[in-house]
Amino acid sequence: MKYLSLVAAAALLFGAATTAHADEGMFTFNNPPVKQLSEKYGFSPDKAWLDRVQLASVRLARGCSGSFVSKDGLVLTNQHCVRGCVEQLSSAKEDLSSKGFTAKDQASERKCPDVEINQLVEITEVTDRITKATEGKTGKEFADALKSTQATIQKECATGADIRCDVVSLYQGGRYDLYKYRRYQDARLVFTPEVDIGMFGGDPDNFNFPRYDLDMSLLRVYGADGKPLKVDNYLPWAKASAAENDLVFTSGNPGGTDRQLTMAQLYIQRDYVLPRVIARYSERRGILVEFGRRGAEQKRVAEEKLLGIENSLKVYKGRYDALAGSLGVLKAKAEADFRAKVDADPNLKQMAGDAWDGIAKAVQIDRALFDRRYMLETAAAFDSQLFTLARQLVRAADERAKPNEQRLREYTDAAFPAIQQRLVSAFPISNELEIEMLGWSLASMRAWLSPDDATVKAVLGKDDTFDLAKKLVTGTKLGDAKVRKALLDGGKAAIDASKDPMILLAKQVDADARAVRAKVEEEVDAPEKKFGGAIAKARFALEGTSTPPDATFSPRLSYGKVTGWTEPTGKQVPYFTVTSGLYERATGNDPFRLPKSWLDAKASLDGNVHMNFVTTNDIVGGNSGSPMINQKGEVVGLAFDGNIHSIGGDYGYDAALNRCVGVDVMAMKQALAKVYKAEWLVRELTGAETRAEAR
Amino acid sequence: MKYLSLVAAAALLFGAATTAHADEGMFTFNNPPVKQLSEKYGFSPDKAWLDRVQLASVRLARGCSGSFVSKDGLVLTNQHCVRGCVEQLSSAKEDLSSKGFTAKDQASERKCPDVEINQLVEITEVTDRITKATEGKTGKEFADALKSTQATIQKECATGADIRCDVVSLYQGGRYDLYKYRRYQDARLVFTPEVDIGMFGGDPDNFNFPRYDLDMSLLRVYGADGKPLKVDNYLPWAKASAAENDLVFTSGNPGGTDRQLTMAQLYIQRDYVLPRVIARYSERRGILVEFGRRGAEQKRVAEEKLLGIENSLKVYKGRYDALAGSLGVLKAKAEADFRAKVDADPNLKQMAGDAWDGIAKAVQIDRALFDRRYMLETAAAFDSQLFTLARQLVRAADERAKPNEQRLREYTDAAFPAIQQRLVSAFPISNELEIEMLGWSLASMRAWLSPDDATVKAVLGKDDTFDLAKKLVTGTKLGDAKVRKALLDGGKAAIDASKDPMILLAKQVDADARAVRAKVEEEVDAPEKKFGGAIAKARFALEGTSTPPDATFSPRLSYGKVTGWTEPTGKQVPYFTVTSGLYERATGNDPFRLPKSWLDAKASLDGNVHMNFVTTNDIVGGNSGSPMINQKGEVVGLAFDGNIHSIGGDYGYDAALNRCVGVDVMAMKQALAKVYKAEWLVRELTGAETRAEAR
Repeated sequence: MKYLSLVAAAALLFGAATTAHADEGMFTFNNPPVKQLSEKYGFSPDKAWLDRVQLASVRLARGCSGSFVSKDGLVLTNQHCVRGCVEQLSSAKEDLSSKGFTAKDQASERKCPDVEINQLVEITEVTDRITKATEGKTGKEFADALKSTQATIQKECATGADIRCDVVSLYQGGRYDLYKYRRYQDARLVFTPEVDIGMFGGDPDNFNFPRYDLDMSLLRVYGADGKPLKVDNYLPWAKASAAENDLVFTSGNPGGTDRQLTMAQLYIQRDYVLPRVIARYSERRGILVEFGRRGAEQKRVAEEKLLGIENSLKVYKGRYDALAGSLGVLKAKAEADFRAKVDADPNLKQMAGDAWDGIAKAVQIDRALFDRRYMLETAAAFDSQLFTLARQLVRAADERAKPNEQRLREYTDAAFPAIQQRLVSAFPISNELEIEMLGWSLASMRAWLSPDDATVKAVLGKDDTFDLAKKLVTGTKLGDAKVRKALLDGGKAAIDASKDPMILLAKQVDADARAVRAKVEEEVDAPEKKFGGAIAKARFALEGTSTPPDATFSPRLSYGKVTGWTEPTGKQVPYFTVTSGLYERATGNDPFRLPKSWLDAKASLDGNVHMNFVTTNDIVGGNSGSPMINQKGEVVGLAFDGNIHSIGGDYGYDAALNRCVGVDVMAMKQALAKVYKAEWLVRELTGAETRAEAR
Repeated sequence: MKYLSLVAAAALLFGAATTAHADEGMFTFNNPPVKQLSEKYGFSPDKAWLDRVQLASVRLARGCSGSFVSKDGLVLTNQHCVRGCVEQLSSAKEDLSSKGFTAKDQASERKCPDVEINQLVEITEVTDRITKATEGKTGKEFADALKSTQATIQKECATGADIRCDVVSLYQGGRYDLYKYRRYQDARLVFTPEVDIGMFGGDPDNFNFPRYDLDMSLLRVYGADGKPLKVDNYLPWAKASAAENDLVFTSGNPGGTDRQLTMAQLYIQRDYVLPRVIARYSERRGILVEFGRRGAEQKRVAEEKLLGIENSLKVYKGRYDALAGSLGVLKAKAEADFRAKVDADPNLKQMAGDAWDGIAKAVQIDRALFDRRYMLETAAAFDSQLFTLARQLVRAADERAKPNEQRLREYTDAAFPAIQQRLVSAFPISNELEIEMLGWSLASMRAWLSPDDATVKAVLGKDDTFDLAKKLVTGTKLGDAKVRKALLDGGKAAIDASKDPMILLAKQVDADARAVRAKVEEEVDAPEKKFGGAIAKARFALEGTSTPPDATFSPRLSYGKVTGWTEPTGKQVPYFTVTSGLYERATGNDPFRLPKSWLDAKASLDGNVHMNFVTTNDIVGGNSGSPMINQKGEVVGLAFDGNIHSIGGDYGYDAALNRCVGVDVMAMKQALAKVYKAEWLVRELTGAETRAEAR
């Protein structure tokens, strides 16, 4: 069964004719699946419907989705999407992660130090401008032209600090669109449940179903005036659960898919990148688990990082299995078929005939540079928040002094506010954890790059890596937001004068890190975009643009229906779980422990209320927090996960098996009302009239 | 360059005609490479030479090699091969690993709790007997017949407790030989250097070269009379280092190779087994590293386990890279060519035409059973010494009550003494470490098998895995050798009556663990042996038996020459390092820290003495501790590692790149004399006459 459905999926990926047969697709709002919806579900959303859904949907800039659910700026997202804020607002004395948080009124809402919320207001195609700027160029010239044109377009668009503009590369460089967002940097925590119910079942149940998680939170966006934002477009909560086979939409920001990559690009993932990254994440997990064994406080400070790592590990392992399994074989065949079609047409052959080999060559360079880039330039490089802050300060000083269009992309005027917000916000950092992670990651860098590598030698000197980490972490003052702000405001002169050991380390490795990044941009990214764009154009010529582009952490609409599935073993999985099942699964111990609030409320709850449910919507990481919407534009659920089969969705959607997992709206309502006694929120969420009266 | 040499290697693996062109091969002592040696090196060892080398070589039954190097039973092996003994003899007060140990005289030598040493005395072919017993059988019938015939043959051969007999399956079931060993269970520690010089460079330098390790130790075998064993056949130490291009032999026990496996068997390693095991070992490594960060004593008790894990990780990663790289492609082609030859010959086709598909089918079953077997039946299952002891006691009670030929193979009369020795010997176990490893491995079992698995549910109940581990570890009395001895002597009645929580756990999972093991033996091992034997016979018919069988942790002879190599990058690597280079590489910090003894002795040492050197000998794990022997039968070095390219040697030997790494005999001599002032040992090792006088 899996085989057959994968054949279908592969056909879908590479042949437009069959696109209407499965609920595949993360559609852009400027090319919505109106035809498919009408043919398959007899539903034709009009422009007003689409506009409202688009404007009611938001992106959490650090990696999640959400939606406005009240006219006073209430945003619904996942518990796991506000974990960073919850950790930052917690301390050894007050652990919001284990205790949860329910504001008793609006005045009690607590500001998240570095949440940025984006609302998409406009999409404009800019392919021509980019194409003209990069035409005939290769390597460094191509990369520079692309970067500076993007920066210029973004700057022209961003008319104020409250506007964020991103040029998004779609179809592997086949199309470029300018996404204009309204940016909100004042988001406050209104409600988040205890992690024990938000992530009930923990890592073992993650990506599994049946499932019983209340993975929800509420934030409220405040305007520049310090008052709750007034929103015209928001999604009211439905009054009942969705029924089997109901049509459901998700509107969110899938982080990225690799469905249109060439096999050369996928093979390097399978044979090199994924195994190495999985091994390293596994080791990190071990360090964190054992660190947490030191005591309750250590467990608390390691929790957010650990949950993130565990989630990533499941994703990477699932992707590996997909590529090493039958999906890899099917995709190879589909690519061969498509290449044959291109080669058979002189025009297409001229356009894209050499593109696959061009990409394959770039991929070999990518592989050769991977270890060095990973260990010097990515966030994994120095596994330390303090180092990351130091690097951002060092780079901000250098980059902000340059013309906008020549900067590294995260330091352009369009992108920098996200970094700036974090740099100047106060949040706690555990030195004890920092020492362990940095000490370990320095040893890991030595293992990957060799003790004889010049950069490694320069960084480590003759020190033991943990001793060095201790010196750096206890010596730096960057844990203090005021110190960071002073260094940021002081610019290059302040950085040059700084004797802070973490700043010195960031400066020490910066040239080497920038060098490998530039090499990748010029020798890998540039040819991959150039040849990827050529393949995309051949695909447009053969198939049109009914297949949506790979996901790019920008807003997408997906449709699907409420339904369970049949496992390859023959086991039937029903589409929903009920509240009473939660109590049956609880053991009293981690990770199947229920918080006291739920144990206390048990008698008052309706055990038949649907807890979680699944749909065929095509989602991936980044979609977390997406509203699940019925035809009336009401929230029937809150997407928080996919089933285990959905992980292979990075490479291709399998309609028979891939499922989106959501929290049922009625479960959210029951929890707020009966477990958390947050009647004022229930009123705000379920009816403007009663809400107005209640205040 | 690598490509070409791999083509040659692939040809070697699958075509006999070219075998003489490279120094490949781990030859059995009953089919030594006399012809190749004569043709290539003009050296024709006679029977006396071969017999002496065979009898002077020993196997350390828990996984290493060694050699008699004096007529009073002195055994030369690696520092890392006696790590288990060193840890068992150490305590918080006296850390032999960091301090090293040099007996000041024979009376000061310290008994290792569970070292068993085997000396091969005779090989007899038993293929006919096995073939007759298994002919026409499949599945359980085949597995039972094979097991009981092997047990019977071994029992007939083992005429006393000092004789160990193993039936060895060679050529994937194509040939069976009976190996008769003399068994010694009284081995005492004579000399071992500090781990900082034994493993100088630690994990980063492991499998690398240039290298500077004094990875040597000396044990002494004692006879039943409690006196040093008198040996007629031993290997004297050479008076000078080997020179470039000298012919060198290694005689040792390569643990296992997979060169003759089918592609179906290799693909499952690449696509499933290796990635999973690498991830799990990485996580274990993280746990152990962070556990060691609790303090010096914790670091000490975790050290042996950590070093073993790090070594395994490098091996597994290297194997993965080999299979995912060009070697995998070449081997696939070689298999296709060989199958074509078989199919072209009606006799061979009849013999083996269906064998590859038969194995591929078994491999699918192996894959489906892998997780369960790994988590319930292998040593990885419950990562706890105490659990292992409990399981051995539980199984010993059941198995020892059965007729010899029906027992699990490690409980047959031939094999059981190794388990028995460990069960009744006293050695320290760290409860603190046991709790962490067991708690973690129970969580890991839940992750692999799912929280809903019946065995997992039964074992974990509603407990947190670390809480459960703590209850088990602090509740059991099995850390006490006297308790273990009483349970062993008490047999089934004692086990049935025991309320020890670890015994109860071992009993609780035993039926499930045995069930999956039996399933694998019957549905995987049996067909793999049957079809593997058929392929081997086809290979004998086409190629003869000049290609030695895959390694099986039994004695093998390998020849090669002293020479460096050229990296694929073009870098030349010379064949030796010198003592002064060691001091240049030292940083004063882990893992490049020199022990005080070496810092103190620096001025007295000849910096030009060769420290480590490389040869083309074909070795793998298990060969550690093998003597490196010149044509005169003298020890010129001590094999302790391979270079990084040698890891792919599991699947095929690449003469251009694979290298064996050894400690030079002159480095050993200089260290014993000048660093450790062990003159009495130098005299014993370098001349019987002076030794006799000295006593």
